[in-house]
Amino acid sequence: MKTAIISVGTEILFGQITNTNTVFLSQQLNLLGFDVLYHYTVGDNSKRLKETIETAFSDCNLIVVTGGLGPTEDDLTKETICEVMGDDLVYDEESNRRLEEHAKTLNRIMTPNNYKQAMMPSSAIIFNNDQGTAPGFAIEKENKIIIAMPGPPREMEAMYFSEVASYLSGFQVGTIFYKSLRLFGIGESALENSLIELISGQTDPTIATYAKEGECTVRIASKRRSLDEAKSAVESVVVKVKALVGDYIYSYDDEPLNYVVGNKLIEKGISISCAESCTGGLFAAAMTDVPGISEVFDRGLVTYTYRAKMDELFVKEESLEKFTAVSDIVSFEMTDGLYRKTGSDICVSVTGVAGPADGGRDKPVGLIYIGIAVKGKTFVKEIRMRNVSRKWNRNFAVLCMLDVVNKAIDNNW
Amino acid sequence: MKTAIISVGTEILFGQITNTNTVFLSQQLNLLGFDVLYHYTVGDNSKRLKETIETAFSDCNLIVVTGGLGPTEDDLTKETICEVMGDDLVYDEESNRRLEEHAKTLNRIMTPNNYKQAMMPSSAIIFNNDQGTAPGFAIEKENKIIIAMPGPPREMEAMYFSEVASYLSGFQVGTIFYKSLRLFGIGESALENSLIELISGQTDPTIATYAKEGECTVRIASKRRSLDEAKSAVESVVVKVKALVGDYIYSYDDEPLNYVVGNKLIEKGISISCAESCTGGLFAAAMTDVPGISEVFDRGLVTYTYRAKMDELFVKEESLEKFTAVSDIVSFEMTDGLYRKTGSDICVSVTGVAGPADGGRDKPVGLIYIGIAVKGKTFVKEIRMRNVSRKWNRNFAVLCMLDVVNKAIDNNW
Repeated sequence: MKTAIISVGTEILFGQITNTNTVFLSQQLNLLGFDVLYHYTVGDNSKRLKETIETAFSDCNLIVVTGGLGPTEDDLTKETICEVMGDDLVYDEESNRRLEEHAKTLNRIMTPNNYKQAMMPSSAIIFNNDQGTAPGFAIEKENKIIIAMPGPPREMEAMYFSEVASYLSGFQVGTIFYKSLRLFGIGESALENSLIELISGQTDPTIATYAKEGECTVRIASKRRSLDEAKSAVESVVVKVKALVGDYIYSYDDEPLNYVVGNKLIEKGISISCAESCTGGLFAAAMTDVPGISEVFDRGLVTYTYRAKMDELFVKEESLEKFTAVSDIVSFEMTDGLYRKTGSDICVSVTGVAGPADGGRDKPVGLIYIGIAVKGKTFVKEIRMRNVSRKWNRNFAVLCMLDVVNKAIDNNW
Repeated sequence: MKTAIISVGTEILFGQITNTNTVFLSQQLNLLGFDVLYHYTVGDNSKRLKETIETAFSDCNLIVVTGGLGPTEDDLTKETICEVMGDDLVYDEESNRRLEEHAKTLNRIMTPNNYKQAMMPSSAIIFNNDQGTAPGFAIEKENKIIIAMPGPPREMEAMYFSEVASYLSGFQVGTIFYKSLRLFGIGESALENSLIELISGQTDPTIATYAKEGECTVRIASKRRSLDEAKSAVESVVVKVKALVGDYIYSYDDEPLNYVVGNKLIEKGISISCAESCTGGLFAAAMTDVPGISEVFDRGLVTYTYRAKMDELFVKEESLEKFTAVSDIVSFEMTDGLYRKTGSDICVSVTGVAGPADGGRDKPVGLIYIGIAVKGKTFVKEIRMRNVSRKWNRNFAVLCMLDVVNKAIDNNW
């Protein structure tokens, strides 16, 4: 299936938002074995959208449009698609019922422009929107398919998984199976170098490496006649990848590190508390992102000032004055103090320089100390991160903490 | 100048990388007053690139292409542009000199395919690449301009600022100025209804509303002959928008709520501490995202268990047993306890049900209590959020807390 993705929205052409919808859809459609040949972005302009759909159909038989399904005047996607496909908008009872129900849940009154969202193309297959108001739809005509989904990524992604993916799978030829392995502690170049012979020797399964936010992913994908065939082809490559870089793999199922760690803690009943300085609550937030974590996560202390470190974690004023907050001594005292206070099986702490300003006294941006007390026994690890940006540095420090906790669990429980 | 941006690269169509080049170029080109009408992405395929350039030129007189200028076989941008513009590649002495110099700096030997990068269109204006090997260029012909720049964002952005921007400024007619107002506490439909007469009556400035993650943005943009004219046109609409929905506007400069609040705290020297349950550290993380916040942010306590709430915030066991942690009583005690412990000018707390499981005893997902102590005087606010997802609920709860703090600052300092 030759495929084009069209994003509708003037805000994209202004550069106000990054188009992540096309990234998501490109990945998903490629996984179904469809060839994504074009991305297009047009503004909220019916004439240009119409011409773009026609251009795309001259080379493709599947078009996926996102955006322009909202209740407002400049939302023109439905009307334009109807024009191209020779269809008309009609009132859809079920969509209206869902809209009214949605408004009721929010204690809001339906405004007149909300009703616009209950008008759907007469020949459309309708996709419900569980996350917002605008329904999506597909129209098939003369061997061409056009699909429309809402623009907000959360709504679009939920709709894709709940309805669109299974609709599209009806047009698949062959089956794709893939696995995404996640790695921490190795850079993309080093990873690619380690796998280079494997990668260049393969046509199916394909092996691709991606880097993002300090982590790497290896995706192994196979397209075969049956799912079983594809699966076993992928599994045989997974074994080879594991032999080469297994030490860095923390998930064989594309699970984020905080979920891997959180679920291990829950499963094994290991209690945890944390004390944070430079990450300012992000580690606690990453842990408490995991549903069910309340069984094992006792507390997190974001001790930003010297006074907070002394009050909450019994860090000595003398240590702070003499070595600054970013030092192995203070890291040790924070961790030890947290254990004395909570008695949690694992106590983890971080102190460091997130930037943009450095920490003074030869403490460069990117220097962090991670302390961990495992059943009361305390260790400190010094890490010098590359300095990318305050945001990146903080997130990377959280990954380092999660990695330290992950290894502590594996080695001690 | 009607403008199209074309990105070349199969990796984008696979969803392997996020296209940030178009975001950067859209912002820059709009600032020069050019109308960016289309974004296109095509793979490393000469036929499809050629057709896309032709399609873009049918409606636009400026095309900016990124990618496909590298030394490898699948880099076809130069050849394809020559085909469309009726030009030929010729050996460029200066580009070759720079390539050899670049190789020398890296202690590398020029490979044969490197020399390909010294071949440039005969009529091209050449843009040097200070960050890598591939030079960029512009070709003008019969009132049409096509510009090619390398794909790696760092090289492209450096080339844009050092050479392309000043080249393009020669074609500027008029200037665009825009403002983005950010609002909290009003939905997109209600917002548009409030502004409907203003929006439908305007052609310049244009007024557009956007919704994302529980917030709204109103963008007001004007294109005039001079920056001053555009600015005053926008400002006059800002005044009208303010008169209609001013109560919900928290920023007139597109600043996120945590920055607005954080910077007010820093500026006024107001100290703050927080206690979190359901948001699990996200509020502290949002606050500590603001550079310089360490001057005023004392500490954050993520009290997840009953015991942590009692130990850290002196919440009464009786209150927890009788009313559960998600109650106005416990919210009050958390806030009051935090104030007694820290004495911060503002103490803010949250307790609630983030889901997916409800809180038992008639505590539905989405119910939260926000407590705030302003100079020791404590108030509690009950909020029933719509239940979207655990992630959304937690983020929205943080926005609610920031909103409460923002109003407390405005009313008390």
